[in-house]
Amino acid sequence: MDLLIETIKQEGIILSDSVLKVDSFLNHQIDPQLMLEMGKEFAKRFKEEGITKIVTLESSGIAPSIMTGLQLDIPVIFARKKKSLTLVNELLTAKVYSFTKQESNDISVAKKFLNENDHILIIDDFLANGQAALGLAEIVKQANASIAGIGIVIEKGFQNGGAKLRELGYRVESLATIHSLKNGEIIFKEEARGAI
Amino acid sequence: MDLLIETIKQEGIILSDSVLKVDSFLNHQIDPQLMLEMGKEFAKRFKEEGITKIVTLESSGIAPSIMTGLQLDIPVIFARKKKSLTLVNELLTAKVYSFTKQESNDISVAKKFLNENDHILIIDDFLANGQAALGLAEIVKQANASIAGIGIVIEKGFQNGGAKLRELGYRVESLATIHSLKNGEIIFKEEARGAI
Repeated sequence: MDLLIETIKQEGIILSDSVLKVDSFLNHQIDPQLMLEMGKEFAKRFKEEGITKIVTLESSGIAPSIMTGLQLDIPVIFARKKKSLTLVNELLTAKVYSFTKQESNDISVAKKFLNENDHILIIDDFLANGQAALGLAEIVKQANASIAGIGIVIEKGFQNGGAKLRELGYRVESLATIHSLKNGEIIFKEEARGAI
Repeated sequence: MDLLIETIKQEGIILSDSVLKVDSFLNHQIDPQLMLEMGKEFAKRFKEEGITKIVTLESSGIAPSIMTGLQLDIPVIFARKKKSLTLVNELLTAKVYSFTKQESNDISVAKKFLNENDHILIIDDFLANGQAALGLAEIVKQANASIAGIGIVIEKGFQNGGAKLRELGYRVESLATIHSLKNGEIIFKEEARGAI
């Protein structure tokens, strides 16, 4: 998605060979117009799928998800993150390990919001090792709902999450895929292809 | 706001005389169309104020804020919540005590996103004791930015947060104000006035 790639180029801050900071438009400060365009793009890619609900993860997944939900006219559910959960009777839960933060979180969705008739689009802001998407997929499967696909704002193509999810058979649609962050430069997949 | 009041009547679950659950459209599952209408309503009420940015609190403040930001064409910043903060050099921080959860959180916004030229609309999902709004206001003041007002989705009129904020001189605009949750019934301020 060109507008997103341009925004990342202008505002993304490379913190290391594997970490990109996008807190000026996605993760902390949010650009609502850009979120709307993302929502339109996700909706365009998935509109034939008969999706009934979007499942995302707090907090950075909410803005792109809500704009996609607006376009598809379906509800959004955000899974909650907790260090550890008690009283899980009414919850669907999964464990998600964050390599960046080196900590494990329990994520949860109330059982009452998902059932076997649901066909779910999972949305998240970043795809790196795929842990968050796998956790969300696990929750959807616990509800016996089906998964239409996984929409990602920024995929780190140099980490293995995307390959892992695609090998599992999921349709993964990323709005921008980063090929490399080396030498202080952001190279996108499309550019890498052209620059063999 | 009529659509919101109708939705609360239909979907709100009274857990006690002081606790209302609205997790089917605001706090866990989110209704994007309703969020858009809220955004339009907040934008209508504050459009003459010359607001430069919206400041809210993760996670439930994000959806109504992003829709308001879309209408006003301004960025949204969500303050992050943490049990306790370390490395606060580049952060504006405040302490927020939650009476519901009986726990204290540090909330923070990166310094670089707020400055003395900003005129801020604070948005939050609930107003009860006013602790979250006061914490957000403190952060805005630390940046020497000014506060245009406080937009609240649901105000619990029977708790003292609204009165406290208004006494401090803040313009508080609530889309729905609950007068009472007693006897298993949700009475809104407007209805209470009519029913003396």
